[in-house]
Amino acid sequence: MKLLKEKIVQHGKVLSENVLKVDTFLNHQIDPVLMQAIGEEFASRYKDAGITKIVTIESSGIAPSMFAGLTLGVSVVFARKRKSLTLSDNLYTAQVHSFTKNETNDISVSKDFIGSEDVVLIIDDFLANGQAVLGLLDIVEQANATTAGVGIVIEKGFQTGGELIRARGIRVDSLANIKSLANGKVEFFEEDSTR
Amino acid sequence: MKLLKEKIVQHGKVLSENVLKVDTFLNHQIDPVLMQAIGEEFASRYKDAGITKIVTIESSGIAPSMFAGLTLGVSVVFARKRKSLTLSDNLYTAQVHSFTKNETNDISVSKDFIGSEDVVLIIDDFLANGQAVLGLLDIVEQANATTAGVGIVIEKGFQTGGELIRARGIRVDSLANIKSLANGKVEFFEEDSTR
Repeated sequence: MKLLKEKIVQHGKVLSENVLKVDTFLNHQIDPVLMQAIGEEFASRYKDAGITKIVTIESSGIAPSMFAGLTLGVSVVFARKRKSLTLSDNLYTAQVHSFTKNETNDISVSKDFIGSEDVVLIIDDFLANGQAVLGLLDIVEQANATTAGVGIVIEKGFQTGGELIRARGIRVDSLANIKSLANGKVEFFEEDSTR
Repeated sequence: MKLLKEKIVQHGKVLSENVLKVDTFLNHQIDPVLMQAIGEEFASRYKDAGITKIVTIESSGIAPSMFAGLTLGVSVVFARKRKSLTLSDNLYTAQVHSFTKNETNDISVSKDFIGSEDVVLIIDDFLANGQAVLGLLDIVEQANATTAGVGIVIEKGFQTGGELIRARGIRVDSLANIKSLANGKVEFFEEDSTR
């Protein structure tokens, strides 16, 4: 997605060969115009997939999911990173290890909001090691729902998450797929799926 | 706001005299159509206030903020509830006590994203004891920015937060202001500001 790639090149900061900081427009400060374009792009790619629900994870998956949900006419459910006292025990739960934060969290979704009849589009801001998406896939499976695909804003294609998920036969749409962050420079894969 | 009040009456669950659960449309599953209407209502109320930035807090403030930001043409910054390893020490920080979760968290915003020239609209999903909003106000003050007002989706007007903030001379717009949750029933205040 051209607009997104331009934004990454202009405003992303390469902190190391593994870390791209995009907190000026995606995961701390958020650009609503870009989020709308991203959400509409996901919606366009999945418009014939019969999506009934978008499942994401707090916090940075929420913004692009809202616009995809609005366009597809479906609700968005975000997995919480730990139990809240106002949620009951009526939960699907999975474990997610964050390599960035070096900790393992439970993520959970109320059983009220995903059912066996649902066709789910999973959306997240980043795909690196794939742990968050694997946790969300686990939750969708626990609900006996169907995963139509995974929409990712920025994939770090040089890490293993995308491979892990595609190897399961699951469709992954990354709007920007990064080949390398070497020498402080962002290089993208050129394949069609990242148009 | 009529649409919101109807949604609360239809889908909110009164768990006690203090607790209203709205996780079917606001803070776990999210209704994008309602969020768009809410965001546009905030934008309409503050359209002449010269807003340059929306400041909210993860996670449930993000969705309504996105649509307000889109309509007003400004970016959204969400305060994080604790430090992330990919953020530097370049942070404004405030302490927020959550009575629901019975814990105190630091919230923080990068100094890169609020400056003395900013006119800020603070948005959050709930106003009860006011701790989260007071923390956000603290951060805006640390940045020497101006707070134009506070947009709240649901105020629990029988708790003290609204009073605390209005007593500082700060404008608060609540789209639904709850007078009582007694006897398992939601009763709203009728004043103009909750039209």
